[in-house]
Amino acid sequence: MIGWEDVYKVVVAMVPLYVALVLGYGSVRWWKVFTPEQCGAINRFVCYFTLPLFTFEFTAHVDPFKMNYLFIGADAVSKVIIVVVLAFWAKWSGKGSYCWSITSFSLCTLTNSLVVGVPIIKAMYGPAAVDLVVQSSVIQAIIWLTLLLLVLELRRTGLGFPSSNSDQDLEGSADNTGSSRPAFWCLMKTVWVKLAMNPNSYACIIGLVWAFISNRWHFEMPSIIEGSILIMSKAGTGTAMFSMGIFMALQEKVIACGASLTFIGMILRFIAGPAAMAIGSIAVGLRGDVLRVAIIQAALPQSITSFIFAKEYGLHAEVLSTAVIFGMLVSLPVLIAYYAILEFVP
Amino acid sequence: MIGWEDVYKVVVAMVPLYVALVLGYGSVRWWKVFTPEQCGAINRFVCYFTLPLFTFEFTAHVDPFKMNYLFIGADAVSKVIIVVVLAFWAKWSGKGSYCWSITSFSLCTLTNSLVVGVPIIKAMYGPAAVDLVVQSSVIQAIIWLTLLLLVLELRRTGLGFPSSNSDQDLEGSADNTGSSRPAFWCLMKTVWVKLAMNPNSYACIIGLVWAFISNRWHFEMPSIIEGSILIMSKAGTGTAMFSMGIFMALQEKVIACGASLTFIGMILRFIAGPAAMAIGSIAVGLRGDVLRVAIIQAALPQSITSFIFAKEYGLHAEVLSTAVIFGMLVSLPVLIAYYAILEFVP
Repeated sequence: MIGWEDVYKVVVAMVPLYVALVLGYGSVRWWKVFTPEQCGAINRFVCYFTLPLFTFEFTAHVDPFKMNYLFIGADAVSKVIIVVVLAFWAKWSGKGSYCWSITSFSLCTLTNSLVVGVPIIKAMYGPAAVDLVVQSSVIQAIIWLTLLLLVLELRRTGLGFPSSNSDQDLEGSADNTGSSRPAFWCLMKTVWVKLAMNPNSYACIIGLVWAFISNRWHFEMPSIIEGSILIMSKAGTGTAMFSMGIFMALQEKVIACGASLTFIGMILRFIAGPAAMAIGSIAVGLRGDVLRVAIIQAALPQSITSFIFAKEYGLHAEVLSTAVIFGMLVSLPVLIAYYAILEFVP
Repeated sequence: MIGWEDVYKVVVAMVPLYVALVLGYGSVRWWKVFTPEQCGAINRFVCYFTLPLFTFEFTAHVDPFKMNYLFIGADAVSKVIIVVVLAFWAKWSGKGSYCWSITSFSLCTLTNSLVVGVPIIKAMYGPAAVDLVVQSSVIQAIIWLTLLLLVLELRRTGLGFPSSNSDQDLEGSADNTGSSRPAFWCLMKTVWVKLAMNPNSYACIIGLVWAFISNRWHFEMPSIIEGSILIMSKAGTGTAMFSMGIFMALQEKVIACGASLTFIGMILRFIAGPAAMAIGSIAVGLRGDVLRVAIIQAALPQSITSFIFAKEYGLHAEVLSTAVIFGMLVSLPVLIAYYAILEFVP
């Protein structure tokens, strides 16, 4: 059984995040510190400076030769389960749609692992658990966000999606297939350019390259470089939460997409995602704290990047914005509930 | 003798500050991340959020019952020496002027002790020395900046300054003296309002009140509050230097006031200020590391607040802007030179 002092530790880790969030919200809504254009500046500061260095700082200290492959396997299995279920639903259910499958995939799988996850999971299971969270964040940034971008790009160009135009003639389809190979490479190029434009992907990949080199040849990062990165990366958590608070303040309402979609979003995020992860983890044989960390990190609030992509591609952005905002607000009790329940896991 | 490894430690502490500065500069000049209006947002973010919490965090951990009173006395003596010299110069020298005395006082005495001073002096003399720097920063914020504001306000209203109108009649002067008492209180009110509007003064005073209470009754700050302050205060150094970089980028030229005034400014900042502090320190009998810290902290770059006040009152703002910018750039070699020379002090 976890005691009150364990719960308190988690609260101590989470409340500062909310304080930064409220300061950001209040700066716009109550104190009018920033004009709407100025809000963009804080967002850019976070997006181009503090957050990439924050991501780099964590990624560069992973040991890629000592990753927990069972944990990563469980993560992969859970994602495959979700993809299969959603693909079936899109194809066979009357209500299914590929567009909603993409959004549901985002909601089930993509979490805010570094900014929110690291402090919480550190408070729950100690520093060793942080390593696991960072590993899953690296996989998310490199594999799953790339895949999401690819699918969104496919949808935009109309390639690879069943056409809604049902009286298309045979010649048309043949033509389509013939031109799809070069189109596919063109599309891959778009995806890579988008990733290369995203400072956070950069940071993750460069961090990982550094991690490989430094662990292979046992380099240490010179303290002068480490310090230069830390001076900005230390600002990462505070400024990212502050910026999320500004984002909330700029929304007309906290629940932008209506109550029922919000409810479905919350179910996918806080129930379906962790459930799939639990199945994946048990399938590969995880147990103890690693199993607990796997499930908890699947129940973290929604990734902000997933909202940014949704907005860019005009695909249910309001659903993901609600998931980010409302999910952050409800995550404290949800995560504490999971923490308490998971104590009974062997 | 200090060795190369000591110098390297200081360089390791200073370079990250310059990196944040260059990122801020580059974001405006090279990468065009921010529009001019957006630059104001970063400045406001630092001024209202990260820097006050940064100041609070340091001030709240001072023990006001265990201050080094000899060190503070040396600081006071050195400032009195400077005030007396400047007052004599203003009154008796042909070239003297009260306006230039105020600016010279700023240049000689007001330093950027927390953002720049703490990391450097920690690298040079360890954590015990940081306590001294924080003490002198508290005194500067509460006593010397208030006094500077008072003198600037006096100058603005024309009270207390020898009138330049030499053919004023006796009755006029009598009138002036009669009305000066209520005017003085009105002016004091203005000074207090200005201080109360300055988030950093707030932070310093609240921090000091907390320090008194917590040390008197042996309270600890609850970790939930400590964490909530740290989440933003950790961003203090990085964001403050970044913001200074933006400020530099927005200036038309680094040296805004001409070479000779820059030279005089640098002499006052890096020679006269430390020299006065050395006299004061030796007068009260400081020795060893405390003496070294006293002199080094008098040779830190110019306080940014002193520039903000100068700009607000339209008094040689370009001289102080140059002292802030150019002083920051040259401070690395200057401080290392002082560090090396002060090793020979008994």
